Amino acid sequence: MIPTRAAAAQLDRIDPLASFRDEFLIGTAPPVYMDGNSLGRPPAAVAGALAGVVASGWGERLIRSWSEGWMELPLLLGDRIGALLGAAPGQVAVADSTTVCFYKAVCAALDARPGRDEIVTDPGNFPTDRYVLESLAAQRGLRLRWIEPADPTHGPSVEEVAAACSQRTALVTFTHVDYRSAAILDLAAITRAAHDAGALTVWDLSHSVGAVAVALDAGGADLAVGCTYKYLCGGPGAPAFLYVRSEHQERLRQPIWGWLGRRDPFLMEPGYLPAEGITAFLSGTPPVLALHAVAAGVELVERAGLERIRAKGIALTELAIALADSRLAEFGVTVGSPRDGARRGAHVALRHPDAASLCERLCARGVLVDHRAPDVVRVGLSPLSTSFVEVWDGLDALHELLAAG
Amino acid sequence: MIPTRAAAAQLDRIDPLASFRDEFLIGTAPPVYMDGNSLGRPPAAVAGALAGVVASGWGERLIRSWSEGWMELPLLLGDRIGALLGAAPGQVAVADSTTVCFYKAVCAALDARPGRDEIVTDPGNFPTDRYVLESLAAQRGLRLRWIEPADPTHGPSVEEVAAACSQRTALVTFTHVDYRSAAILDLAAITRAAHDAGALTVWDLSHSVGAVAVALDAGGADLAVGCTYKYLCGGPGAPAFLYVRSEHQERLRQPIWGWLGRRDPFLMEPGYLPAEGITAFLSGTPPVLALHAVAAGVELVERAGLERIRAKGIALTELAIALADSRLAEFGVTVGSPRDGARRGAHVALRHPDAASLCERLCARGVLVDHRAPDVVRVGLSPLSTSFVEVWDGLDALHELLAAG
Repeated sequence: MIPTRAAAAQLDRIDPLASFRDEFLIGTAPPVYMDGNSLGRPPAAVAGALAGVVASGWGERLIRSWSEGWMELPLLLGDRIGALLGAAPGQVAVADSTTVCFYKAVCAALDARPGRDEIVTDPGNFPTDRYVLESLAAQRGLRLRWIEPADPTHGPSVEEVAAACSQRTALVTFTHVDYRSAAILDLAAITRAAHDAGALTVWDLSHSVGAVAVALDAGGADLAVGCTYKYLCGGPGAPAFLYVRSEHQERLRQPIWGWLGRRDPFLMEPGYLPAEGITAFLSGTPPVLALHAVAAGVELVERAGLERIRAKGIALTELAIALADSRLAEFGVTVGSPRDGARRGAHVALRHPDAASLCERLCARGVLVDHRAPDVVRVGLSPLSTSFVEVWDGLDALHELLAAG
Repeated sequence: MIPTRAAAAQLDRIDPLASFRDEFLIGTAPPVYMDGNSLGRPPAAVAGALAGVVASGWGERLIRSWSEGWMELPLLLGDRIGALLGAAPGQVAVADSTTVCFYKAVCAALDARPGRDEIVTDPGNFPTDRYVLESLAAQRGLRLRWIEPADPTHGPSVEEVAAACSQRTALVTFTHVDYRSAAILDLAAITRAAHDAGALTVWDLSHSVGAVAVALDAGGADLAVGCTYKYLCGGPGAPAFLYVRSEHQERLRQPIWGWLGRRDPFLMEPGYLPAEGITAFLSGTPPVLALHAVAAGVELVERAGLERIRAKGIALTELAIALADSRLAEFGVTVGSPRDGARRGAHVALRHPDAASLCERLCARGVLVDHRAPDVVRVGLSPLSTSFVEVWDGLDALHELLAAG
């Protein structure tokens, strides 16, 4: 059965999260936005939150603000993000960029496994992760062991990871939700396979956080990083987060020893002594304005509740897949994402040989999607700001383009 | 002669930069703020600038903004900051924190001098710089050679640096304007001494940029970093900048190979290929909101002109020193900054055995200064937002405290 626009509108009417769309700043000529997994829309509250901290914390309290809450921001916000990731407090800090957090996490893991010379990952991993791994492999004379998954739509299986691991493996690192296919990897089982070989894990949660459930503590994850400007709507280039499991915090060390990671930083004493806990993973001064923007996005996710967000993410992607099957398949579109909602994040990969040109033409019509080489039209359906009708309209535009040939 | 409050008021009346005070958000109960070299006051335009980019670039244009200017922000803003530092375009990028930029710069310099095993710096260098150097020395088995300057008020001399350098020296690194004494080091002469030994230099310009003239290109500097939240008023924890001399850009490599430093990042191809020029020193996604805040501060400095800012910085610190000599010396206050204005940045170190307690009591009265251990009351006089009367009132409060015993 082909889902009609009326059916999509009916889904919007019964959507318990429908009202959250009003909590975002939607432009005057709203495009169909199907790229919220690249850059989440701005929370309506964000400009006010920024003006507030500019006027009060920065303008009125000035340097006093450092001892009136600013120093705690990276960890307080980290705890809130941790709660969305199944992490107990004290294990997540918000700082730096995803790239820099990933670099720190990987260095910490490699340093904790001296004598081992292999890193296991997959060539479909997110580019910045691959480049950081290349960099560190080159610097340290390590070998990158790339798993080519037999089933690219679902990504590396636990068996494939286990087969690639050995006593040489220092680190196993993957993106939890694939940035192209949206495949969710089995974090707990892959972590177990890594641990069985004596390796540590670093998980990239950029396409997971705020969209799907993650169980870092329960899954045994060692380290993780992620981005706050996708489903957390923290703003373009917002600071990232870094998770270090409590039991590792005493022993694991990151390489960028900055003053904010030192015990009693304002004493400015000689000699670096790592602070306790996750604080030791900080380096530079907390980006206060940017952290306030992130908090505005996190607040929306907290209020909506991850369970409802996840349910809507599945429903939105189900609709996209149903439309692809019923209206787009005849023009050569195939679904490059898992069909089982439980194994799929909140975006869908639609594959077509003309993906690049189709994406360009969609964007020219105000239907914003991302092209991912070689053949993916990536449809990102951020549950809090995307309506079912928006998905219908967006894929209707794609249908029109394809039908016009 | 003791400068009177009326004399200070007269200096304000003839101050060509006096009107710039209105370009800052001054709180409703304005404290005497003498810590603008720790955190510059907010430009009045900054909240509006942030609201603007939230509404238009982020809210309206969404991901399209990446190809409509956002990707160029780190370098365009870098060029503007470079112009304040005597650096021709294409050599400065705004990114990360000062700590992370410093880490990248030091790694790049050390990698370019293989076989050399010493780093020359001074124990009075800013803490985060010292800690990063310790970290890299430990990782790489290098020796830190600490210069104890014979004249701590003026910092390491060229002769002391030259004497510490040898064929073992890989890197010479100092803060250009000392964060405690405000002593300005001779960048060109120290760089020459380093180069004579075959070493490279990394300069920390955190207390220089926007306050004193710096001649990076003319002085032969190799690499430099600095902070934008002091005299540039970019906001608490604002992103930092990194300078890499043009002629080094092809050969020097930073260690954090992120996607934004790669050629054609959005192709997401396998294998890291450094982008051309200073772009290769980027790692993660540009912090767009924070960059707009920095731009608001930079715009004020550009409009006021560095020459006038520098002249006012000298005049403000002269007044502070004259007041210290005439009203505070009898209570044991000494001047811990160079008396020659040409060798002094825009802050003054007032030394007193009770500095810690005095700073605390001053802050309780709304006179915001910084304590720097062990005995410095640091009086930071950001030229664009500080009036002469403010300096008079602030040091009058200190006089009262001292006189009360």
